[in-house]
Amino acid sequence: MKAIKDSVHDHITLDPVAADLLDTPAFQRLRHIKQLSTVRLVYPSASHTRFEHSLGVYHLADRALSHLAVDDDTAAHVRAAALLHDVGHGPYGHQTERVIMRHTGRHHDDIADLLPATEAGTVLEDHGLDPDRVAALVRGEGDLGGLVSGELDVDRMDYLVRDAHHTGVPYGTIDHERLIRELRLRDGQLALAEGNVWTAEALLLARALMNGTVYRHHVSRIAGAMLDRASERLLAHESGPEVDEFARMADHGLLVALREHVPDLGARIERRDLYKRAVWAGLDEVDAALADLSYDDQRAAERDIAEAAGVDDHEVIVDAPSRPGIKESNTHVVVDGVVRRLEDASELVGALRATERAGWRLGVYAPEPVVDDVRGAALDVLGVRATP
Amino acid sequence: MKAIKDSVHDHITLDPVAADLLDTPAFQRLRHIKQLSTVRLVYPSASHTRFEHSLGVYHLADRALSHLAVDDDTAAHVRAAALLHDVGHGPYGHQTERVIMRHTGRHHDDIADLLPATEAGTVLEDHGLDPDRVAALVRGEGDLGGLVSGELDVDRMDYLVRDAHHTGVPYGTIDHERLIRELRLRDGQLALAEGNVWTAEALLLARALMNGTVYRHHVSRIAGAMLDRASERLLAHESGPEVDEFARMADHGLLVALREHVPDLGARIERRDLYKRAVWAGLDEVDAALADLSYDDQRAAERDIAEAAGVDDHEVIVDAPSRPGIKESNTHVVVDGVVRRLEDASELVGALRATERAGWRLGVYAPEPVVDDVRGAALDVLGVRATP
Amino acid sequence: MKAIKDSVHDHITLDPVAADLLDTPAFQRLRHIKQLSTVRLVYPSASHTRFEHSLGVYHLADRALSHLAVDDDTAAHVRAAALLHDVGHGPYGHQTERVIMRHTGRHHDDIADLLPATEAGTVLEDHGLDPDRVAALVRGEGDLGGLVSGELDVDRMDYLVRDAHHTGVPYGTIDHERLIRELRLRDGQLALAEGNVWTAEALLLARALMNGTVYRHHVSRIAGAMLDRASERLLAHESGPEVDEFARMADHGLLVALREHVPDLGARIERRDLYKRAVWAGLDEVDAALADLSYDDQRAAERDIAEAAGVDDHEVIVDAPSRPGIKESNTHVVVDGVVRRLEDASELVGALRATERAGWRLGVYAPEPVVDDVRGAALDVLGVRATP
Amino acid sequence: MKAIKDSVHDHITLDPVAADLLDTPAFQRLRHIKQLSTVRLVYPSASHTRFEHSLGVYHLADRALSHLAVDDDTAAHVRAAALLHDVGHGPYGHQTERVIMRHTGRHHDDIADLLPATEAGTVLEDHGLDPDRVAALVRGEGDLGGLVSGELDVDRMDYLVRDAHHTGVPYGTIDHERLIRELRLRDGQLALAEGNVWTAEALLLARALMNGTVYRHHVSRIAGAMLDRASERLLAHESGPEVDEFARMADHGLLVALREHVPDLGARIERRDLYKRAVWAGLDEVDAALADLSYDDQRAAERDIAEAAGVDDHEVIVDAPSRPGIKESNTHVVVDGVVRRLEDASELVGALRATERAGWRLGVYAPEPVVDDVRGAALDVLGVRATP
Repeated sequence: MKAIKDSVHDHITLDPVAADLLDTPAFQRLRHIKQLSTVRLVYPSASHTRFEHSLGVYHLADRALSHLAVDDDTAAHVRAAALLHDVGHGPYGHQTERVIMRHTGRHHDDIADLLPATEAGTVLEDHGLDPDRVAALVRGEGDLGGLVSGELDVDRMDYLVRDAHHTGVPYGTIDHERLIRELRLRDGQLALAEGNVWTAEALLLARALMNGTVYRHHVSRIAGAMLDRASERLLAHESGPEVDEFARMADHGLLVALREHVPDLGARIERRDLYKRAVWAGLDEVDAALADLSYDDQRAAERDIAEAAGVDDHEVIVDAPSRPGIKESNTHVVVDGVVRRLEDASELVGALRATERAGWRLGVYAPEPVVDDVRGAALDVLGVRATP
Repeated sequence: MKAIKDSVHDHITLDPVAADLLDTPAFQRLRHIKQLSTVRLVYPSASHTRFEHSLGVYHLADRALSHLAVDDDTAAHVRAAALLHDVGHGPYGHQTERVIMRHTGRHHDDIADLLPATEAGTVLEDHGLDPDRVAALVRGEGDLGGLVSGELDVDRMDYLVRDAHHTGVPYGTIDHERLIRELRLRDGQLALAEGNVWTAEALLLARALMNGTVYRHHVSRIAGAMLDRASERLLAHESGPEVDEFARMADHGLLVALREHVPDLGARIERRDLYKRAVWAGLDEVDAALADLSYDDQRAAERDIAEAAGVDDHEVIVDAPSRPGIKESNTHVVVDGVVRRLEDASELVGALRATERAGWRLGVYAPEPVVDDVRGAALDVLGVRATP
Repeated sequence: MKAIKDSVHDHITLDPVAADLLDTPAFQRLRHIKQLSTVRLVYPSASHTRFEHSLGVYHLADRALSHLAVDDDTAAHVRAAALLHDVGHGPYGHQTERVIMRHTGRHHDDIADLLPATEAGTVLEDHGLDPDRVAALVRGEGDLGGLVSGELDVDRMDYLVRDAHHTGVPYGTIDHERLIRELRLRDGQLALAEGNVWTAEALLLARALMNGTVYRHHVSRIAGAMLDRASERLLAHESGPEVDEFARMADHGLLVALREHVPDLGARIERRDLYKRAVWAGLDEVDAALADLSYDDQRAAERDIAEAAGVDDHEVIVDAPSRPGIKESNTHVVVDGVVRRLEDASELVGALRATERAGWRLGVYAPEPVVDDVRGAALDVLGVRATP
Repeated sequence: MKAIKDSVHDHITLDPVAADLLDTPAFQRLRHIKQLSTVRLVYPSASHTRFEHSLGVYHLADRALSHLAVDDDTAAHVRAAALLHDVGHGPYGHQTERVIMRHTGRHHDDIADLLPATEAGTVLEDHGLDPDRVAALVRGEGDLGGLVSGELDVDRMDYLVRDAHHTGVPYGTIDHERLIRELRLRDGQLALAEGNVWTAEALLLARALMNGTVYRHHVSRIAGAMLDRASERLLAHESGPEVDEFARMADHGLLVALREHVPDLGARIERRDLYKRAVWAGLDEVDAALADLSYDDQRAAERDIAEAAGVDDHEVIVDAPSRPGIKESNTHVVVDGVVRRLEDASELVGALRATERAGWRLGVYAPEPVVDDVRGAALDVLGVRATP
């Protein structure tokens, strides 16, 4: 069996299906999509891609399956789903997710339409696997869907430890081998075995710390917001791609297309010449409604602010994330012989929820020369209360 | 300057004082005191000693001082204190701490009497340093005492990352370099600079996770309790050492002395043939008073249980830890320009306190053949409520 | 001072010159040039770039300078040279080096013309540094040029350990801190201090092992040869870039340009749909002259083979590397108080030279369907002797 | 199945035989024998023991067996042999090997007599395994004996990577997973599969570099020689142990016994107050015969030197190692389909042999105050030529 050397999991052994899937254009494309997209502008050594991440997820799924009593056919589908779980991502991964969603209504883990259209679907069928079943697992459906996409999925286990390895930020170094060994399938529900409340909490904490220090770093958020706006302008450009073509681009294609068709933002992203924060306000400082602002409302606010500040529309970006949630609170653990939700067994889940809320920030960004003008206008337009 | 290779911090450069202190018997003795004492019975690769830990603490103190504006003389005293902070430990470190405290009233960080009596004191004086000032820093006194012993001390930073390296449990791998770079001295108070609430929380969480999985593992607690009782019997033995001699032993000397004078427990500890848990009860299952039981009361309870169970006194150990506290809640961080207690700036501190409470356990231990008899008697004598 | 988190060296502190150089387009461009170019097609987690490598080289230069007695002005120039040493690289680094050399006669470490033309030159001058002196150091000139480019340079120290970190191949994990601490400047010559023959040999061995397993892996060589031929065709294309423009591209721009103008090879490189080995022959199996074949002669041989095999010219690639040499044999070490060449102090250097010779391979590559036809023709045309 | 957390291999899963063997006194004793004995006096973080090393060897054997086609019964015997391969070691491992050999003629890997006498033998029989067959495998006999003790054994693979982890010296970090995956059983001979000459050479080089920098560090050799002499005096002491009792001691027992019965050397070893080098001469500087000096002749030379120097017999130690050899040159690799000896396929083996010869040193050690007197006498008595 073919083995690939990985810096995180050492040798990854590929089964024949995986070896064939690897050679398909849909999978090779992942070589050109960085795992951490704009985070790399803060942590320069984080240049890893969704290609090696997908191999890692496949590897962990395989390890987990070796500890669970699962029939061979199901296991083969789960492994394929683990390998393919990210082929639906657009260029720059999560950073173009909302653009694509707005134009197509499609989320990156919806690959039901994608699989039949590509060689990957053919490879699956040639090996006697059902592409629809693989796509369903990628959406997290079925007993073992949770292993691919859920509260205790191997996706998260791989990215936390891989992102830690490549950023140098240690918080993501979870004990993935223990998590995998302690997984149980109880009444069609993945749960951690007795004695693993700490194990589950550690996973939760690792993600919270990586959120705070890595994934939601303000520099990455600024670059991501610039990319979002630039992508919209690219799609609106007469020589720009259609959205389906856009969604199939990879990082290098997008970067070149932006430089060509949206040169102001394109060059800025390429050279890390980013907008600065004009406003950076917590939930206590803004009207509650701001955390629920639609995209159109955000764009309208940008225009209002630009007008008030006397700058060009493109020079104001309003970045109001939706309210934070903690998916992992639905993690299940066995406590005293009973499967319980982690939330009910752990004192920490509630506190992490509060911490996530405390970390929420409304951002308004603008080029450095006009940042003060934009700040004044934005505080006014958005009704941000001054921090004491 | 002399450099020593360390598996955690790579090369550690020694200043002339440190180089001379290294050669003193008081410091070389630390080669023979394992950092994690009985934890090693659970995590076998954790054989590291207080010798290399002390070098690591010295190294981190030196790094921290390079970022703080401190005069040379103070810095020299702080470095010496960091190096010597553990010379007051008895054999098996924390596991004999309470025995020694009961017999001498002296805590391991009280080295004021110890320093003058040893070559280490002479070395300090030969280099123009004041042993009393060093001893005060080891007790955590003065502006920079907190760097050696306090909420943000380099002792903790080293042991977390070193224990993670040697146990293989990743939770302790904090970002110590960031902690050190972000330390500030504000109004005579060590505090983390602006933007470091996450940094402080990460330190807290790392310790909580290491507590739960490593430091307070029940196997280590059982062996520790056995060692405590065996030490008492050794001190009571007519051919046993005086307490001062006992406190100056190292691991190997104690192990041989126990095998000779307290052969039942001595051989068990040496061969990891440990007592088993007869009772393991949380705060909800016991009377509140049990968490405050004095040592004498614990011993009295042991005798009562032994009598009720019809076994020998030595075959029952009651291990009731005192209520958990979280020292780090006093960590100070700068938030919006103001030095604040972490407790007031973080949602997590309160939750961790609750988690620590939830992790408290009363243990009653006995040899395997009598463990059922002891359980019945102990539940009765201690009034432990059955878990539902 | 600004600090950047790196996965290899942890925090890297930037001096004011470095902080300003970082923001120049010439340096930011390095974010888009992968350190290991086509090696990444073998070791997928090796996606790191010359950006973080350059930061690492800067960091190691700074550490080395702290151990050498060098005046501040010289040190500032050396640090700047270390940071900028790779800005002269073309897209895909070493893999387009020969194309650019053939068309311009310029090597990547010749940045004398480049510096004045960019913001980087202005930044240097603004800080009172001389761009010409920096360029000379990058070429390895002067007493300390050897620290930037020479047998004991920090470039090598960084890339070995960084490539090991990212490929997962451990052979590159040298003891860089020891190398740096043991560097001495003796009579204008960098040399390792007494007792470091092993240290020097270990560096040599690490590079030899990385050469054999990573840098010269046949898959990377095939992709590199394809890229070389594709680049020539791109430069010859009527809509293609001029060579100076080509040399200033980064990976993403080249990949998109190749897809557009040299679609057969471009798509193959992008999708890792590579040519296969038709011939792979050692020095014993070929005429000595083949190891000295000029580029034009290689191209002529390709045409002859293609004709004999009845395939298109573009379907044959002859890849005859020049004879291997071991630069590090000029490393100097102090032995018994005298500076000696490592070659004269070490038994291993000669053996490594023989090993490098034994690892030399002539490659002839072709698309899979025609690989057998090409093999027959190539053996004939090139006069390769059959391996027994 | 029981799993143990290890800092090198992460989780190690124990089969039922291993789980039972673990609890035997013979195996638990290995907790008290440090892997690197006196090396720890140079590399302080290298406190790991033969206990965790043995677990690691067991783990690697199990991994290797999963890649080889071996029947279950043979595999069970190999795993048991891997786990038990070091139970025959005396206190301080290799450092008392020669004392024990001189008095009993028994090497540490001769456990045929030992197994039946202990619980370990009973455990093996209870699980249907043959203690004699296990003992034969530990001696390296049979087709798979080479996996336990031979040129490509898992013992070496574990100790190299483990010693690197704990000393911090990176040279031992081999690619053990690749070695294990590439092992083949060809005609009753373990060999590395095609394409692994580099893999085999890397193993050889790792050991050579660790020999030079770690295992044969002069400080470790001095302490080892002191321990050897002290052990002889302990065995000769009227209250000292018999040799069989001595051989069954562990580190702590020996250290306490030496302090009591050989207080001068015992206290020195305990406090790292070591003799210094009076002579340190290479093969070129001494008569060839010195490399073949018997123990008795070395002791006689010590007495002659002591007399000439006017110091006590105990104050002179002559340490003349036997000529170096490279066992791994017998490693077998498949090259072009044929099993060949590495020596015949690699240019490096010969050079490493020369390097080992160049690293050979005759040592004469003495307490610091008399080191000059001893040097003069030793040069004279031993006829050491002055280094030019």
